[in-house]
Amino acid sequence: MVGVALPGVNPQLTPLIHKIVGDPARVARRAAALARIGGRGTAVTRLGLSDEERRAHALVGDWLRRLGATVGRDEAANVVGRFGGMGASVVIGSHLDSVTEGGRYDGALGVVVAVEAMDALARARVRLRKPVEVVGWTDEEGVRFGIGLFGSAAAFGRLPPRAAGRADRDGISIREALRAMGLSGDPRKARIRSGTVRAYIEPHIEQGPRLADARIPLAVVSSIVGILHGRVTVRGRQDHAGTTPMGQRADAFAGAAEMALALERGAAARAGAVGTVGEIAARPGAKNVVPGECTFSIDVRAPAQRTLDAVVRDLRSSVARIAKRRGLEASIDVLNAVPVAPMDRRLRALLRRSCAAAGVDAPDLISGAGHDAENAQLAGVPTGMIFIRSRGGSHSPREDADPRDAARAATALAYAIRELCA
Amino acid sequence: MVGVALPGVNPQLTPLIHKIVGDPARVARRAAALARIGGRGTAVTRLGLSDEERRAHALVGDWLRRLGATVGRDEAANVVGRFGGMGASVVIGSHLDSVTEGGRYDGALGVVVAVEAMDALARARVRLRKPVEVVGWTDEEGVRFGIGLFGSAAAFGRLPPRAAGRADRDGISIREALRAMGLSGDPRKARIRSGTVRAYIEPHIEQGPRLADARIPLAVVSSIVGILHGRVTVRGRQDHAGTTPMGQRADAFAGAAEMALALERGAAARAGAVGTVGEIAARPGAKNVVPGECTFSIDVRAPAQRTLDAVVRDLRSSVARIAKRRGLEASIDVLNAVPVAPMDRRLRALLRRSCAAAGVDAPDLISGAGHDAENAQLAGVPTGMIFIRSRGGSHSPREDADPRDAARAATALAYAIRELCA
Repeated sequence: MVGVALPGVNPQLTPLIHKIVGDPARVARRAAALARIGGRGTAVTRLGLSDEERRAHALVGDWLRRLGATVGRDEAANVVGRFGGMGASVVIGSHLDSVTEGGRYDGALGVVVAVEAMDALARARVRLRKPVEVVGWTDEEGVRFGIGLFGSAAAFGRLPPRAAGRADRDGISIREALRAMGLSGDPRKARIRSGTVRAYIEPHIEQGPRLADARIPLAVVSSIVGILHGRVTVRGRQDHAGTTPMGQRADAFAGAAEMALALERGAAARAGAVGTVGEIAARPGAKNVVPGECTFSIDVRAPAQRTLDAVVRDLRSSVARIAKRRGLEASIDVLNAVPVAPMDRRLRALLRRSCAAAGVDAPDLISGAGHDAENAQLAGVPTGMIFIRSRGGSHSPREDADPRDAARAATALAYAIRELCA
Repeated sequence: MVGVALPGVNPQLTPLIHKIVGDPARVARRAAALARIGGRGTAVTRLGLSDEERRAHALVGDWLRRLGATVGRDEAANVVGRFGGMGASVVIGSHLDSVTEGGRYDGALGVVVAVEAMDALARARVRLRKPVEVVGWTDEEGVRFGIGLFGSAAAFGRLPPRAAGRADRDGISIREALRAMGLSGDPRKARIRSGTVRAYIEPHIEQGPRLADARIPLAVVSSIVGILHGRVTVRGRQDHAGTTPMGQRADAFAGAAEMALALERGAAARAGAVGTVGEIAARPGAKNVVPGECTFSIDVRAPAQRTLDAVVRDLRSSVARIAKRRGLEASIDVLNAVPVAPMDRRLRALLRRSCAAAGVDAPDLISGAGHDAENAQLAGVPTGMIFIRSRGGSHSPREDADPRDAARAATALAYAIRELCA
């Protein structure tokens, strides 16, 4: 790989040990093979717990078996390939599902990088004394059943209550979907015993433009933002749009619009925070009726728990104030609150060194998206993440990552594994 | 009727001619008979061009026939009962359809009042020299096919282009619905020849709280507000809600929220104007995606054309300014623009006198809702309207009007007919 003109790579950092090296061609080939499962053009639809995801797991299982791993599937349908013998393992990997009409790289590229790291280590004849497990998590996106990070939540004991009963639009539950795959139907049985995982490292595309903008191929994640997902319900009075004077209205949508703008302002005022209203519904939803009820989603994220709490606190007081002034009733239901997950300090340092060994002076980045890694970290497993530069956003057929960047990530990951397990 | 303690009735105004008098009991009986067609409790669902509406038309036709009218149906399925012989007529009536889960009185009570006016005139043996026609218009609400004021638009030559081809959710067109009723399928054939209608007078519940608040049973409509219905489309950039900093967003919904509030402020700032956003949709509509596109309805009304135009002009400039500042594209499509329809001055004076003859000092009121009357007025037919006090809003099972108020309206209408036709 030395001498390849790769933007953002500093040849000064290229290591002396040239034996361990990820291969862009193998990465590209494996990524393309996965992209064909559920793929159409550059779009991929490979929903969690679907037949497409199952086929992707099987393909990754084949690769791992050929590299000498013992391959199995747990009760959450996660695919796991184990290298080495007894004892606590270092787990590496990512997820293999996608959103509807998503891209080729979100999740899948992380698994490919983990496989390539093991391939590179094997080719360099690095002998590992401690076990490594490569994992492909099930249903990270949560599209079909509404439970994101499903496979890793099961493995790290962080499933929401009664998760197995959660049903898709056709009324099929997670339990039934798992049983149809020949499993018991109880994903809680996938829970890893405490102390059996020494570390978890996840490579993943960045899903944002910062690395591409800065022309740097890799970053080390410093923390995964905390996320609060909620629903605000605003109740006013449904009235005739023609016969109700402006001064006599209790317009639920107008109140909701003001609350949404308050969230936007509140998030913009705090460094690193974001606040989004992505879903909104006004009822009854007729052009000539003043809305009597309005619901909207809120998605608040911040890199520090204090910041997240402050944005949510500001929003609560804005919602109350606006509702009072307008004669509305408003309530906020918190649907999901994931705390900030700071990555493990020692793993961050190790991954910076490992990226340097792969020729990249990797900066720290905060992850604005949730990842399976947060389940590991929040369960007490030392966790790290490597971000791979990508373009075209994410959850989109325009996702685009350079196989040379991914190969660098594999090289870095292989160095980290060597340090942890050799 | 004299001596009945009816709130808001000034006995000083009770006329000397006591013979012509609407009967609350008959009004209540007929209103109840209509309410049973499509009724459930106090809710009525009698959509335009439905079998329920056809049965209501038939019932009204029976009543009119018994009162001596020649009853027919035009090519828009409007039911018409003609009293008297040749020449231009005075037309009185309203519509017989309702919204889904609407009330008993919106439309129907106006037809009952017109029937009762003819009944009262007949019982008082008032001989009419000039013809009167009682009409029950088809499909005023426009629920099923999206064309409001359908029957009157057909009669007064104000149908939108290609109206007959407009289809309901099941793909059935107005043409097919009319044919299924044994008509030609071309509602344009219902157009009344110019000069054949001397005047049109429509009694209707107020659909607002002003008469009830003022404890007055009847009002004379001074004008029907102008209405602009439109759709605003805002285009921004769809982004990941977690990885896109607040400063780098082009959030279509946040822009739309700001525009909706600008409409609210702009309407509130101009006397008599109202502005409503009743429908809103954000796309793709996922909690963790910054909306890339947002559409919302606008409903702007004002009692003076100048005011209406000013509110719309202000909105246009707000939309452009907000879009520019936020890096969005926005456009306003006008779906329907009905000009202000001032009621005929001489008919307004006649109706005030007629209400006085019925014991009511009727104030002027502006109609904030559209009515079949506007089609008559905008087609050049001198037009007047009497509003009847009602409670419980409109388009709602809570609609509630007192049969004594309706009987007063019938008395007033009968006096007006006597003046115009005897």
